[in-house]
Amino acid sequence: MHISIETDKFVTAVQYVSKAVSSRTTIPILTGIKIVATQEGVTLTGSDSDISIETFIPLGNEEREFMTVFEEGQLVLQERYFTDIVKKMPGETLTIQRDGQMAATIESDTVVFNLNGYDPDDYPKLPELPEEDQLILPQHLLKDMIRQTVFAVSNQETRPVLTGVNFDVEHLKLTATATDSHRLALRSASFDGDEELSFTNIIIPGKSLVELSRILKDDETPVTIVITSTQVLFKMENLLFFSRLLDGKFPLTNNMIPTNGKTTMELSTKKLNQALDRAMLLSREAKNNVIHMKASTGGQVEITSVSAEAGKVQEQLHANHFEGEELRIAFNGKNISDALKVIDSETISIMFTGSMSPFVVRPTDHDQMTHLFSPVRTN
Amino acid sequence: MHISIETDKFVTAVQYVSKAVSSRTTIPILTGIKIVATQEGVTLTGSDSDISIETFIPLGNEEREFMTVFEEGQLVLQERYFTDIVKKMPGETLTIQRDGQMAATIESDTVVFNLNGYDPDDYPKLPELPEEDQLILPQHLLKDMIRQTVFAVSNQETRPVLTGVNFDVEHLKLTATATDSHRLALRSASFDGDEELSFTNIIIPGKSLVELSRILKDDETPVTIVITSTQVLFKMENLLFFSRLLDGKFPLTNNMIPTNGKTTMELSTKKLNQALDRAMLLSREAKNNVIHMKASTGGQVEITSVSAEAGKVQEQLHANHFEGEELRIAFNGKNISDALKVIDSETISIMFTGSMSPFVVRPTDHDQMTHLFSPVRTN
Repeated sequence: MHISIETDKFVTAVQYVSKAVSSRTTIPILTGIKIVATQEGVTLTGSDSDISIETFIPLGNEEREFMTVFEEGQLVLQERYFTDIVKKMPGETLTIQRDGQMAATIESDTVVFNLNGYDPDDYPKLPELPEEDQLILPQHLLKDMIRQTVFAVSNQETRPVLTGVNFDVEHLKLTATATDSHRLALRSASFDGDEELSFTNIIIPGKSLVELSRILKDDETPVTIVITSTQVLFKMENLLFFSRLLDGKFPLTNNMIPTNGKTTMELSTKKLNQALDRAMLLSREAKNNVIHMKASTGGQVEITSVSAEAGKVQEQLHANHFEGEELRIAFNGKNISDALKVIDSETISIMFTGSMSPFVVRPTDHDQMTHLFSPVRTN
Repeated sequence: MHISIETDKFVTAVQYVSKAVSSRTTIPILTGIKIVATQEGVTLTGSDSDISIETFIPLGNEEREFMTVFEEGQLVLQERYFTDIVKKMPGETLTIQRDGQMAATIESDTVVFNLNGYDPDDYPKLPELPEEDQLILPQHLLKDMIRQTVFAVSNQETRPVLTGVNFDVEHLKLTATATDSHRLALRSASFDGDEELSFTNIIIPGKSLVELSRILKDDETPVTIVITSTQVLFKMENLLFFSRLLDGKFPLTNNMIPTNGKTTMELSTKKLNQALDRAMLLSREAKNNVIHMKASTGGQVEITSVSAEAGKVQEQLHANHFEGEELRIAFNGKNISDALKVIDSETISIMFTGSMSPFVVRPTDHDQMTHLFSPVRTN
């Protein structure tokens, strides 16, 4: 293998695939980036066996050539060195030339690196997924759906399925659900395509989705989602993102969400979040973030928090609408605050079903999002 | 004590003094901020016993009043809560009212905090320094002198004096010196004032200087430095910054710096630093950052670095001027790179006195800075 390529183009591609590479893998060759040069262009691959990212740099576009391929071939070079090396190369172009089976010379201007690597024949193959069952979304929408659910996954490995976000597809509607058993975040979206397409229990690891959302753009560019029983593939222009799926059965959450409340109110998203932020200044030390709320029929809402060491705080809010019974409840303020941060709407409605029962937070201007919370028992 | 004060003004002042407060102190009351209100204004104090910061907010300026003092008095409130609380207060003003001997009520809009504190009578007094021996510098100059020396202090407590920067004053010249015994950074500056003023061995802890430089402005505003045998005080407008001095004798460094070299060359500061950055990509893993340099009489400079695991790198630079013998030397690349980062001049001169002797790096456009380095022995 021997290529000359624009440094900037190459650096961007290397940074994409390096996101998938982990130094903590137990498979040494996966600490490397695979580089394949053909007469069509250069393909880079990085993987930690949970996530794999493959990106392709074509020879050029209509305006200009990005590279010259003097000789086809492949290489695997150590990511921890390679990514930094190409980033710090001084010239506008760099050349990479294979040097024996497992090493390469990388040159730019007066700089010459000789870098050791691995045998490319040993690099694991990426799965080939059938292209039948797929749906297409704008990238910004998938990015929003991830942001609005992934914060609620569990970070405890005791119930592995809860470390992922569950995706269901039915009647041209995609629903993403995450829960750590104390709170639940649900976001749905409609898409165009095959009315017959139906999936349930597609559990994608939260970590994969966080990495994916760093790559997704904030615009209408499409992303194609290909689903199999063990893998999911997100296809973007010149970029493939594979993730394994989590084994197991995601809890059925539909009938957890109460439909009738005893106390319902509307509040400013921002004002409630600021009040919780202040109240948590005292409760964060106790690590449970317990906040007390007292809602009176006039729409007066009192937020309080007490710390034996520090003191106490009390704050008044006023609900825009208030219906139902007076209520006293205690909850984990951080869980509510996490949810409020991903609700882009100015006002939310909260529906309580009693001081010892779960309650629901929803934006007031659309019905594609639901957050569910358990109260906290105090004294 | 009972005051009402503009939130913004108060937050700025609290953030200054909170820099001096450490949660790791063994003296509980020093986890607090002291607040003293008089008919002249409010004084805030924070201290970790090494550093103390006192700031004063006057009643107002020519344009407007910042505060109303309803009742004079003093308080000590826990910094870890108090700083965040005032930052997150919603209203344009906040009120603080003493609540018994050791607590306060802090209010803003509909928010009420009751915060526990300490008995203000127990708060240690700040030293009163005689105002005789003092010098005045523009703040940006002192900030530069700190930035250009403090990186070279030792972070090992085995020789405590080396964890500080030594200041000497003589003939209207201030000299700051730091060394960790492998490298030395020296920066001097002239000032106007009393020709007779003379100090030696004023060793200010590096940590104090780092905090001070966060407060110093990048402009010509003056800072007055008051020196005693155990303390130094930096006086700025409405702000006092005290630091204890380090006990002991700072090494005499004057005669360490060689005056005649065997090999002298001039290089671009930026190009040398970028070359070292690249070479360290391979040597950083070995943690010694060993870089090899070979300089030939034509002015050709070769930088190389080798890693058993990763590979090797070789890069060519060209010296603007070159005088003296050919040379091969090895050094800690990070030490040189740290120094190059604080040299604001475009070119530097390096003077070598042999491959096993210390060498000197200086900017080419002024003589107020000297960096000295030991080479590394390699076989």
